[in-house]
Amino acid sequence: MPADDPGVPAGSTPGEGDLARLAARALELVRDGDIVGLGSGRAATAFLRALAERVGEGLRVRGVPTSEATAALACRLGVPLAGLDEAPLALTVDGADEVDPRLDLIKGYGGAMVRERIVAAASRRQVILVTVEKLIPVLGTRGRLPIEIVPFALPLCRRRLEALGCPPAVRQAAGRPVRSDNGNLLLDCAIRPLADPAALERELRAIPGVVDTGLFLGTAGIVFVADGRAVRILERQGRR
Amino acid sequence: MPADDPGVPAGSTPGEGDLARLAARALELVRDGDIVGLGSGRAATAFLRALAERVGEGLRVRGVPTSEATAALACRLGVPLAGLDEAPLALTVDGADEVDPRLDLIKGYGGAMVRERIVAAASRRQVILVTVEKLIPVLGTRGRLPIEIVPFALPLCRRRLEALGCPPAVRQAAGRPVRSDNGNLLLDCAIRPLADPAALERELRAIPGVVDTGLFLGTAGIVFVADGRAVRILERQGRR
Repeated sequence: MPADDPGVPAGSTPGEGDLARLAARALELVRDGDIVGLGSGRAATAFLRALAERVGEGLRVRGVPTSEATAALACRLGVPLAGLDEAPLALTVDGADEVDPRLDLIKGYGGAMVRERIVAAASRRQVILVTVEKLIPVLGTRGRLPIEIVPFALPLCRRRLEALGCPPAVRQAAGRPVRSDNGNLLLDCAIRPLADPAALERELRAIPGVVDTGLFLGTAGIVFVADGRAVRILERQGRR
Repeated sequence: MPADDPGVPAGSTPGEGDLARLAARALELVRDGDIVGLGSGRAATAFLRALAERVGEGLRVRGVPTSEATAALACRLGVPLAGLDEAPLALTVDGADEVDPRLDLIKGYGGAMVRERIVAAASRRQVILVTVEKLIPVLGTRGRLPIEIVPFALPLCRRRLEALGCPPAVRQAAGRPVRSDNGNLLLDCAIRPLADPAALERELRAIPGVVDTGLFLGTAGIVFVADGRAVRILERQGRR
């Protein structure tokens, strides 16, 4: 195979076409002059690349990144950054790991959920991009709930989470505990499908040292779902 | 005045006798073999010094410190340290900035409240030492509520706190923002006496990026109050 042959034609990576369609759909919500929250992860990155193209064509937007990785990519792609002090942001575009029929979410497999929630909370609308396999009937279906904790609290959090039936594993990379962009630890809690996500959220937040959880209840305003060649639109009824 | 004259005789600093009396009273709760949570601040330091004397006389205890400053002092005084993984601790001895008639507290003027809550939560009993001026009729009387936040969230927290009527000031030292032992920012919120501290706590904890607040509701098991030459004992009715 010649060196200049990429082997895999552009667009054929599984899901890449889906992500491009989602990104294009989200772009339609962006207006000239907007400040846009930039999520983290694959879907958010696809949106950022599409946004950068439009910026190259003259669209005037600035982005508030939800992770150091997203900030670095935005810089590289030439999307100007703005601060969280310039809120309210028009919208935040982000991905999710689970979406239930009420548009409640589990996020955090990528570890950026604390800043993702902060930026979304400073935005008029949280726009979520997912491929169809992220739609689940009940939150917890994929068996994993990330939470971020103050490192000092690890032994207490471990005991409390085990007592709640959500045994945690400290997220590791290259054999060492991962630190979030905020300097904290990420725990991946083993969970079953949740009968009452709001009750679990209250219990988790009541544990001293828990900074935040991956449960995003009532935050998503609109969800775009790539399903085959189509993009489905799920919209929350009523304002949050 | 000769160089070796300290000027102020030992024990005459205002409140030092009070603190020594409180420390002695708290010591009576400590048993040989206990693991003890070590608070931060003046009253907790008086207790640590008294505990260290007893350790020098043969008492076998170990301490779990709630701040880097307390850890350093414990080491210097020869009190062995233990980890939070050795819970449950028998008791935690700490101070407070306000104590109301229900034994609800405001803490955090010293900036260690996040670890103080974590260690207290791992303890069978939270023992609070205060001088009488910390007894107030209603939480908020002294006008200040510390909270700890993820630094990234500052602009959002500022707006939300102002909207709640608790305008925050970023705590500074030597002209720079103070970082807590957890690497976070400390905000001192201006408050009025609180009609419903539990409601405010819920509202504060619902702000994305808030790690914890100085409101300690329902945590204190017993409060020793230095009042003139006497030490009053206030005990919570029922178990928490």
